[in-house]
Amino acid sequence: MSKGLPKRADDYSAWYNELVKKADLAENSAVRGCMVIKPYGYSIWEKMQATLDKMFKETGHSNAYFPLLIPKSFLSREADHIKGFAKECAVVTHYRLKNSDDGSGVVVDPEAKLEEELIIRPTSETVIWSTYKNWIQSYRDLPLLINQWVNVMRWEMRTRLFLRTAEFLWQEGHTAHATKSEAMEETLKILDLYATFAEKYMGIPVLKGVKTESERFAGAVDTYCIEALMQDGKALQAGTSHFLGQNFAKAFDVKFATKEGGLDLVWGTSWGVSTRLIGALIMAHSDDNGLVLPPELAPIQVVIVPIVKGKDQYKLIEDRLEPIIQKMKARGISVHYDNRDTHKPGWKFAEYELKGVPLRLAIGPRDLENNTMEVARRDTKTKETVSIDNIDEVVENLLKEIQESIFQKALTYRESNTTEVDSYEEFKKVLNEKGGFVKAHWDGTTETEDRIKNETKATIRCILLDEKEEQGKCIYSGKPSSKKVVFAKAY
Amino acid sequence: MSKGLPKRADDYSAWYNELVKKADLAENSAVRGCMVIKPYGYSIWEKMQATLDKMFKETGHSNAYFPLLIPKSFLSREADHIKGFAKECAVVTHYRLKNSDDGSGVVVDPEAKLEEELIIRPTSETVIWSTYKNWIQSYRDLPLLINQWVNVMRWEMRTRLFLRTAEFLWQEGHTAHATKSEAMEETLKILDLYATFAEKYMGIPVLKGVKTESERFAGAVDTYCIEALMQDGKALQAGTSHFLGQNFAKAFDVKFATKEGGLDLVWGTSWGVSTRLIGALIMAHSDDNGLVLPPELAPIQVVIVPIVKGKDQYKLIEDRLEPIIQKMKARGISVHYDNRDTHKPGWKFAEYELKGVPLRLAIGPRDLENNTMEVARRDTKTKETVSIDNIDEVVENLLKEIQESIFQKALTYRESNTTEVDSYEEFKKVLNEKGGFVKAHWDGTTETEDRIKNETKATIRCILLDEKEEQGKCIYSGKPSSKKVVFAKAY
Repeated sequence: MSKGLPKRADDYSAWYNELVKKADLAENSAVRGCMVIKPYGYSIWEKMQATLDKMFKETGHSNAYFPLLIPKSFLSREADHIKGFAKECAVVTHYRLKNSDDGSGVVVDPEAKLEEELIIRPTSETVIWSTYKNWIQSYRDLPLLINQWVNVMRWEMRTRLFLRTAEFLWQEGHTAHATKSEAMEETLKILDLYATFAEKYMGIPVLKGVKTESERFAGAVDTYCIEALMQDGKALQAGTSHFLGQNFAKAFDVKFATKEGGLDLVWGTSWGVSTRLIGALIMAHSDDNGLVLPPELAPIQVVIVPIVKGKDQYKLIEDRLEPIIQKMKARGISVHYDNRDTHKPGWKFAEYELKGVPLRLAIGPRDLENNTMEVARRDTKTKETVSIDNIDEVVENLLKEIQESIFQKALTYRESNTTEVDSYEEFKKVLNEKGGFVKAHWDGTTETEDRIKNETKATIRCILLDEKEEQGKCIYSGKPSSKKVVFAKAY
Repeated sequence: MSKGLPKRADDYSAWYNELVKKADLAENSAVRGCMVIKPYGYSIWEKMQATLDKMFKETGHSNAYFPLLIPKSFLSREADHIKGFAKECAVVTHYRLKNSDDGSGVVVDPEAKLEEELIIRPTSETVIWSTYKNWIQSYRDLPLLINQWVNVMRWEMRTRLFLRTAEFLWQEGHTAHATKSEAMEETLKILDLYATFAEKYMGIPVLKGVKTESERFAGAVDTYCIEALMQDGKALQAGTSHFLGQNFAKAFDVKFATKEGGLDLVWGTSWGVSTRLIGALIMAHSDDNGLVLPPELAPIQVVIVPIVKGKDQYKLIEDRLEPIIQKMKARGISVHYDNRDTHKPGWKFAEYELKGVPLRLAIGPRDLENNTMEVARRDTKTKETVSIDNIDEVVENLLKEIQESIFQKALTYRESNTTEVDSYEEFKKVLNEKGGFVKAHWDGTTETEDRIKNETKATIRCILLDEKEEQGKCIYSGKPSSKKVVFAKAY
C-alpha cells in the first residue's frame, strides 16, 4: 500500500513533497515560506538536537542565547556579510499597532516607528561579535566556544519544506581564538563532528571539502562543508564550518591582550546545521512506500501490532508483551505498542511503513501458542519469525544491523554515482544521463565556474580535503589544474 | 567576600541587577529590551527545560514548531486578543535591504514592502488555531496536545533582565478538546504540573489560583496561575494556564464532527512559563553573597577545589580524587573539579559562592593524611569535615537536604509574610510596613480592584482555588463578599 505516494522514478520532487505531508512531518503555514513542523517531524529534529548537543558539549562548547533582532547598522559592518544577506532580510520597522481612524480594523501605528530598523537574524555573527567585544579582553578569556539553538530567517523566493524555507531552525556555533591555527583547528574539528553525525547517526556518507570563493559564506575566509548525495543524483550541502579569520574581529574591533603583552585581533569560526538535515534524511533513504529512518534518529524504533479480536485476546497478548516491552525499554529501545481497536492491522502496517519505523513486530493467537513473533524490517522489507524469549536481544541487534545497512546502501549508491571525467563533453553527458558527483579538473577561476553553472546548472560542491594532487587540464578552459574538484547539480 | 554586590536590605533592585551580571547569567544587548543569556544563565534554563519537557511528555504532550511571524489579520480575529497585544507588537513590513542611492549605506528597499504586515509572535494562539482548523475534523483527532519551545516578543517599555524583556524564551502549550470538562481538566492538570515544578525543582512554594477579569489573558475565559513570593515581599506570577473556552475555535472556525454525528466548536487551553522563572529563582533564594541555587536546577551541583601548591601535590590529590569523582558521577551528580593554578583557592571559593554552587568540597595535604575533605554548604554556609570513603553518599544526601531546606526556608518566609486583614487601614499598613501576600475580602468588581491598585499599587494576584467560603465585607466598598482574595505588590 503506497498511500498514494508518487513514485520516485516518475516524479522525485512530487514524491518528496507528498511524503513530507503524508508522513506528518511538516506543512506550509499561512505565512509564505514559513513551515509548521508537525510533532512527528519535530521529534526527528529533537533526536538530531540531542545527539549534536551532546557532541558539542563533549568538545567543550556551551549554549547561550543572543537576540533575535539585529540593528541594521550591525549587519552592515562587515562588507561581504551585508552584501550576502541584504536581499533576504525581514525588516522590523514599527513596534505597535493601533485601531485605524476609520474604525475598520487594526493598523500599524505610524508614530511607533523605530529610529533604526531591526533585522530578524539571518545568522548571528554580527550581534555575537558585537557582544564578544565586551567579553574578550585578554588571552585568558579565550577560546570562547559558544553555540545557540535558534530560529533564523532568510527571505527566500522559492521555498521547499525543510530544504529551503524562509524561517528555519538551526544551531550556530561562534568561537573566538587567540591564534589562527587554533581557529583553523576548531573549524576542521567541527567539520569532522558534522561528518561523524551525518554518517554514524543519519546513515548518510558525506564528502568533506572546502568551498570555492563564489560559494563561500558571506564574511568568511574559507567555508568548509559536508556534501551528501540524494537518490535523484543531486547533491545537498548538509553542514558548513567557516573559518572567519579576523574579519568579524576587525568589523567589531575585538582585540585581546596577548600573553606576551601585545594587542591582537581575535580569530573566529562559525558553523551550523539546520532543519534542512531532515530533508536530507528523507531524500537519502526513503522509498516509494514512505520514509526509511535510521534507528539512531527514529522517534519510534520498534512498533508492536497485535493481530487479534476481542478483549480476551488483547488481554492475553498484553500479558505476554508486558515483560518484553520492559526488557526492550531497559535496553534503551524506544518501543510503541499500538493497541488501538479503531484501526485494522493492515492499516497500521501501512501507516508505520509510511512513517519509517525501522522494525515492526506483529503477534497473533498462533504466535502466542508457538511463543513467536513476526519481525519485519522497514528498510529491506524482509520478515522473519523469532522466539519471544530473547526478542529484546534480537531487536537490539537488528537495529544495529539496519543502521549499518542503511549507511552501506547509501555509500554504495554514492560510489556508483561518482564519476571522474576528463572532458567537458563527457562531463555534460554524465550530468545529464547519470547525475551524481562528477569529478573534473577546473582552472580555479570564478569565470569558468560561472560559465559551467550557466551551461549545465552544475556547481562546484567542494574541493575535497583529501583530493590527490595531479597534473591536469581544466575541462572547460583547458588551462592547467593541479587537482580535480567535485561538481554536481545541487539542492 | 561579597564581590561588590549591593546588600538586599539596602537596595533590593540594585542587588538583583548586579547579581544577574556578576554571576554571568545575562546582560542587556544592543537591541533595547532584548537580553543576551550567557552560558551560565542558559545552563539553568536548559535544566528547567529538560525537567519540564519530561513532565509534558509524561502527560501525553508532543513538541512541534509554528512560525515566528503572524499575519496581522490573524492576530485581529479574536477581539480581546488583539486588544491585549496590539500595543506591544514588533511589526515586519519589508523583506529586503538595498544600497542607498547616494551610496552612503544600506537602506530598506521600499519596493520590497509586504502586502500584509507580519507580527513577531507575542504568543501563538492565532497562528496555531488557524492551523488546527486543518488538523481537526473529527472527534478522533482530539484531544490535540501540543507544546513548543520558542522565542516570543512583546515590546515592553520598561524592561529588566529575565523579569520583563522584549524578547524572551518560553514554552507555550496549546491543546484542543472535544468537551468543556476535558479542556478544564487539562487547564488544571498543567497548573498542578507547574506548581509541582516550582516547588519540587525550583524550591519555591506557590499559590494556585484564578485571576480576576482584569488580569486575565487576552482571549481566555479564565486564567489560572501560580504565584510566588520574593524576598522583598513582592509577588511574582510564575506561570499561567488558560482555559480558552471556544474563543479561538470561534475566531478560526474550528469545528469537529462529534461521536454522535453533530458538529461542535472545539474547546481549547494554552499555558506557558518563560525565562522569567530564572528571575524568580534568583530572587527567591539568593543572598548578599550571591546566588543560592537548588541542587535540582544547579548546572554544577558540587565543585571540588584543591588547596595545594606544586605539581606533585596536584598529582597526589588528583589520584585520590579520581575514583571519588567517578562515584559521584555514577550517582548522577554533576561535579566540577577546578584545578586551575591561575586562581587561588580563596578566589575560587568566592566565585562558586557567587554562582550558587550548592556544595563545595575542599581538599588539602592534611586532608590527604587524614583521609578527609571539607564540605561547605552554600545555602547555610555551614562546613563539616567528612571521611573521603563514603563522600559520594554524603554528598548525595546533602544535596537532597539542601533542596528540601531551601524550599522550607522559602515556605516559612511566605507563611510569615502572608497576612489576613479585615479593614482597608490594616491592608495599607501591612502593605507598606511588611509587604507580602495580603488576604482580604473584595466585592468582586473591577472598579474596586482598580481603585485599590491606584491607591496602593497592590493587585489581586489570584483567588485561591482552595479558599474557604466565608461571609465578609469588601475592605474597600463594604459590600458583601463570600471569600478572601490574595493581594500583593507584584513584579
